[in-house]
Amino acid sequence: MAEGKKRVLITGAAGTIGAALREHLGDRYELVSMTRTPREFSSHVADIADGVEAILPAFAGADAVVHLAASPAVETPWEQILPNNLVGTYHVFEAARRAGVERVVFASSNHAIGMYEVEAAPELYRLDDPRVFDHTVEVRPDSLYGVSKVYGEAMGRYYMERHGLRVFCLRIGSVRDADDPTAPEVLAANPSLLDLTPDQRRQRMRATWLSRRDMAELVRACVDSPDVRWAVVYGVSDNPRQFWDIAHARELLGYAPQDRAPE
Amino acid sequence: MAEGKKRVLITGAAGTIGAALREHLGDRYELVSMTRTPREFSSHVADIADGVEAILPAFAGADAVVHLAASPAVETPWEQILPNNLVGTYHVFEAARRAGVERVVFASSNHAIGMYEVEAAPELYRLDDPRVFDHTVEVRPDSLYGVSKVYGEAMGRYYMERHGLRVFCLRIGSVRDADDPTAPEVLAANPSLLDLTPDQRRQRMRATWLSRRDMAELVRACVDSPDVRWAVVYGVSDNPRQFWDIAHARELLGYAPQDRAPE
Repeated sequence: MAEGKKRVLITGAAGTIGAALREHLGDRYELVSMTRTPREFSSHVADIADGVEAILPAFAGADAVVHLAASPAVETPWEQILPNNLVGTYHVFEAARRAGVERVVFASSNHAIGMYEVEAAPELYRLDDPRVFDHTVEVRPDSLYGVSKVYGEAMGRYYMERHGLRVFCLRIGSVRDADDPTAPEVLAANPSLLDLTPDQRRQRMRATWLSRRDMAELVRACVDSPDVRWAVVYGVSDNPRQFWDIAHARELLGYAPQDRAPE
Repeated sequence: MAEGKKRVLITGAAGTIGAALREHLGDRYELVSMTRTPREFSSHVADIADGVEAILPAFAGADAVVHLAASPAVETPWEQILPNNLVGTYHVFEAARRAGVERVVFASSNHAIGMYEVEAAPELYRLDDPRVFDHTVEVRPDSLYGVSKVYGEAMGRYYMERHGLRVFCLRIGSVRDADDPTAPEVLAANPSLLDLTPDQRRQRMRATWLSRRDMAELVRACVDSPDVRWAVVYGVSDNPRQFWDIAHARELLGYAPQDRAPE
């Protein structure tokens, strides 16, 4: 264990975001990777749905948990939302409490407020559209997945206020393996619940893109924040078309994105 | 079936609130009572945790569902919150959708925002304390029970916006079998998470009391509302000490409480 480095547990470390964190934060922190199935980089193999006891060993000595493990697709049916997003998230917060982990960074999602986009698209994607939704808007989940993220934020709020954890909820935009919002493979997948034309997909991805290093930067801002106890912030790069607010993340956490989707 | 009367399904009909609705709304509507165990008044016996199919027969032909079935205590541990409040509530909304039931009245709770009270008590209970929390405050659940109610409201929001249901979330105060906020047996039970003195309990119950007929009146206002599609309102009688807002319920739904805790 590297002297003086914070120990950061990542749940769901095998996913797209987990890989980005391993790539960009591996030097800064002592990363502990939890995965559901064995991987070459796994520190612990456990399923968050199995229970607090099943995952607790991974939490020992951690300064922070970055909770990414979940079914990540907006179309996920209830049968997977229940174990992976609802039950598993409770197990993670409860394990953090029992292990005395000070802070939890929770991968929430823009889908917690997705109905604003459903209502405002596709005009919302235009460069000259002035609308921006911030952390103070009323929740409007667009899916059972979105409901599970509202629930996770409420669970975090409870653990913050009743059990003293510091909790950071990240309403993450579009992080992709191909780290380029103009890549054909990125644009091939429909990124939303809406039936978008190819041109609208291009516009949307330029608005919602979060580069892999900016994703890592946002997590770093949470893990290093000296005094914030509760945050709900959006995660996108410094995109000209952005329609989710990042001013609050900059001000509250010192989030400093380096990337900007090209126009 | 009475001609022209709305058919209203009550889940959890055997509880305190279910009994109040059966007593005060039995003439106004055709009530359909669902209970987990057989009772003399049961129309359907089913456990909401068992699945959509298990409860769906009870929803046939209903104009509204009043969803009361849940573990009702603020101290309820996770093992019961999960089936009774999280899973069961999804089943109820999904069954309403599949059966084509137009509206759902969801028994939420003040514990969805309970931390405001935890923070402000016991001064909050005083007659001259001016603080009132309304439906626009940020959620601050005080318990896993409170988290389950935030989740239920988010689920309702999703079913309202994506599936066209009309959803009414009632953050209910203190409804008691002994319908008197000064009764010794009512005051004997600690009504909150706080360690209150007998005098503080008396004060609180005068603030949070919801009489049985006002509880029924609030449900009536939801079931009869001609045009409201979404509501989050508090349920208390017209108490001088009230610290949860009822002006919004009056204005939006025409809620007209008849009772007032004595001073």
